[in-house]
Amino acid sequence: MWDIVLQRKKEISLSRQLFYAMKKLILDGKITAGEALPSSRWLAEDLSISRSTVCEAYDMLITEGFIVSRQGAPTRVKDGLYLDQSHTKAISHEAEQSAQTFAADFKTGQPDVSCFPRYLWNQLMYKACEKLQDRDLGYFGTAGYEPLREEISQWLFRERGISALPQDIFITTGATQALNLLVQMLSKKGQPFGVEDPCHLGILEILKNGELPFMAVAVDENGIKAEQLKNQCLSAVYVTPAHQFPFGGILPAERRATLIRLARKQEFYIIEDDYDSEFRYVGAPVTPLYSMDCERVLYVGTFSKTMYPALRVGFVVLPPPLQAKWLYLRKYLDVQNPIIEQAALAEFMRQRKLDKYVQQVRRMYGEKRRVLTESILQCFGNDVRLLGDESGLHFVLQIPGLYFADNFIAESQSHGIRVYPIEHYCVTKGSHTDKLMLGYGHLHVDKIHESVLGLYNFITKNYIK
Amino acid sequence: MWDIVLQRKKEISLSRQLFYAMKKLILDGKITAGEALPSSRWLAEDLSISRSTVCEAYDMLITEGFIVSRQGAPTRVKDGLYLDQSHTKAISHEAEQSAQTFAADFKTGQPDVSCFPRYLWNQLMYKACEKLQDRDLGYFGTAGYEPLREEISQWLFRERGISALPQDIFITTGATQALNLLVQMLSKKGQPFGVEDPCHLGILEILKNGELPFMAVAVDENGIKAEQLKNQCLSAVYVTPAHQFPFGGILPAERRATLIRLARKQEFYIIEDDYDSEFRYVGAPVTPLYSMDCERVLYVGTFSKTMYPALRVGFVVLPPPLQAKWLYLRKYLDVQNPIIEQAALAEFMRQRKLDKYVQQVRRMYGEKRRVLTESILQCFGNDVRLLGDESGLHFVLQIPGLYFADNFIAESQSHGIRVYPIEHYCVTKGSHTDKLMLGYGHLHVDKIHESVLGLYNFITKNYIK
Repeated sequence: MWDIVLQRKKEISLSRQLFYAMKKLILDGKITAGEALPSSRWLAEDLSISRSTVCEAYDMLITEGFIVSRQGAPTRVKDGLYLDQSHTKAISHEAEQSAQTFAADFKTGQPDVSCFPRYLWNQLMYKACEKLQDRDLGYFGTAGYEPLREEISQWLFRERGISALPQDIFITTGATQALNLLVQMLSKKGQPFGVEDPCHLGILEILKNGELPFMAVAVDENGIKAEQLKNQCLSAVYVTPAHQFPFGGILPAERRATLIRLARKQEFYIIEDDYDSEFRYVGAPVTPLYSMDCERVLYVGTFSKTMYPALRVGFVVLPPPLQAKWLYLRKYLDVQNPIIEQAALAEFMRQRKLDKYVQQVRRMYGEKRRVLTESILQCFGNDVRLLGDESGLHFVLQIPGLYFADNFIAESQSHGIRVYPIEHYCVTKGSHTDKLMLGYGHLHVDKIHESVLGLYNFITKNYIK
Repeated sequence: MWDIVLQRKKEISLSRQLFYAMKKLILDGKITAGEALPSSRWLAEDLSISRSTVCEAYDMLITEGFIVSRQGAPTRVKDGLYLDQSHTKAISHEAEQSAQTFAADFKTGQPDVSCFPRYLWNQLMYKACEKLQDRDLGYFGTAGYEPLREEISQWLFRERGISALPQDIFITTGATQALNLLVQMLSKKGQPFGVEDPCHLGILEILKNGELPFMAVAVDENGIKAEQLKNQCLSAVYVTPAHQFPFGGILPAERRATLIRLARKQEFYIIEDDYDSEFRYVGAPVTPLYSMDCERVLYVGTFSKTMYPALRVGFVVLPPPLQAKWLYLRKYLDVQNPIIEQAALAEFMRQRKLDKYVQQVRRMYGEKRRVLTESILQCFGNDVRLLGDESGLHFVLQIPGLYFADNFIAESQSHGIRVYPIEHYCVTKGSHTDKLMLGYGHLHVDKIHESVLGLYNFITKNYIK
């Protein structure tokens, strides 16, 4: 009668298969409106299946409103169900982009997780799973897991010298989420966000996606030129004072004080993104701007670099006046973080394993930095300058006289080299054309020299006349 | 000299304590601009600490730009650092809201996790931790963990009868995140989103937060009156066809076909939120709207009800033309999901444990539903009606002649009863004033009758004259 093929597979019952097949025939117009269906007995015989199977399929069609059944009358197909299926094109899938591998890869923001204490962490994850109460598995709180907020508070005091109460700390799924919510929360109609120039692309994309205005403030080797914010009506200002991204400067105390004075007077908030200040190789750690004013500075931290990126845990420290709005927005953004990672991380921190691990990787990154620096001087000679190399997982290589613009990215990649010019991060183009940014967190120490050599050869061949 | 108290604590070195103390004195104006600091030898003696400790603290102050040191001249405090500290008010914290407990709690959307196979799940989490490669801990992909996308594809086919390719499935941290991103992605300037009325509050809040216009389309017992969308210029339409929230109707096939015809003609996308159709107690599962058009329908699913809410895993099925934009927006929203839960869930599904667990809890919820229904009829008699009780974790209780508006929420809560009137979910008020919504997923079966009795007594005393 109809073209129905049923398979005696295990996972989908025959009745459902029949239901799907008939539904498709109706939508395709092969069984038309008003048409009477055969009796269940007849169809069962025709398909060599049991009558109850057919009845089940008919019941499903009735439930979903494809057919109507009235006592004493044959079951009929309802009106208005035909959908032109020619419309549904065969969906084509582009071949998955094959992930290019690079002979020299200086991408930034890629931590090395090879010496992360996996065994210990796995144990803590398991214990966290075991220990959680049933209520912890429910919707337990948009602010975050209490013990983790407590541990972060203590850790901020130990590692950063700032006093933030646990109830002012709000867990996020990373710095990016924190920035998104802060931008949404702080935006005032028509008032731009102050950003650094050059700037972290994440915040720029967030502002662009939200169609929000921004004011790019020039950065020099020390960081943002804070006095340029004077007399501006701003929604908020985004800064990276501990290690300016991408330049690497530490914002000096007097600019910090200026920034805070302006924030108080002009009533804007300062978003402090502390993305990698754990990794400082020269001198003592830098204290956050937050320590100078905990009412105007919103401190954003992340564990993507100190733990591992796929953990997805970060946090923001907020003053009480902003907290209710934050919780409201987070609730309707994605409700809360998953619980297990939070519980395991709290225990990892309580046992001081994070402190220990950070010390350990700091030494590892320090060694990579040393090898990279030496290798650069060896290849490029003494004419080049390194900027912002005192901390973090990247620094800037300045080669006076050369010109690197956005097209450098594609050109170098076609030669198997991944490296970004500072111009890529500039809002106002043209001021930093002799600078490249070298990320080294993920590099294998034995391959650094080879990578630098690859970069050097590429540049000599293509950029030095 | 200055009022500096150092403690020989373990966790913060003396040099850092000294640095913090001096920094505070400078910011407070107690050490003023241009003032010469004592020699390190002198200060060390004064504080009874080693000279190297003082030198370290001075170095930190130099690094952060609080003081300058020139050879042959005393170290001096820089200009412009004084910040008025009277400005910083003591931050008051409101007492944490004590979570009220209710004698009768009919809150919706609360699954019962008491029989979730915790032991098995913990084992899978641990194995997932062990099995992951180092590269899985990095930024591994915004689309989601491949094996999980594969398992969801198969599960959708087994459980929902829809064919979705793994590469069209995008993992999210729950349905709320999916709705947020879809709204951001689909919004067209000035064109409203179609929503059901009454409607799920999540989508309404998302639209309100984004200051996006919406058009509320009336819903009857069967679901959205699709023909009202005719000739409207829409950004997209949000529907809950499997179990209309809050009403509970199953959208009939002809309205489904109408909706899809309009979506094709008027070129809008349909967001299908399938939030609880796993739990169907009467007849067969309902197939998603997605099965009728995989180009116009964007299917949103979640594991918050079938697993547990704090898992934070959901997904959306997207046609290829929307995928690049989705990945871009997700990258700048929160990058990706955490990895471990994705890996463990993939294995849980591969072993068919999800299928088994859903069957098991469906029986449990079915029993709760039976007891609740009987109890209601016993207390309220035969004049009341139950709507949308064939599936899900809630249904509607209609008591003809009574009037429940938004103020009912506060009144009932002050009597220890949590129950929401349908009016609470209505955009256009006044049409559903005789209906209450009863969530029962989380209720203990032995306490259901008591809860219903509490509700009945409250209503008889306060609402029946």
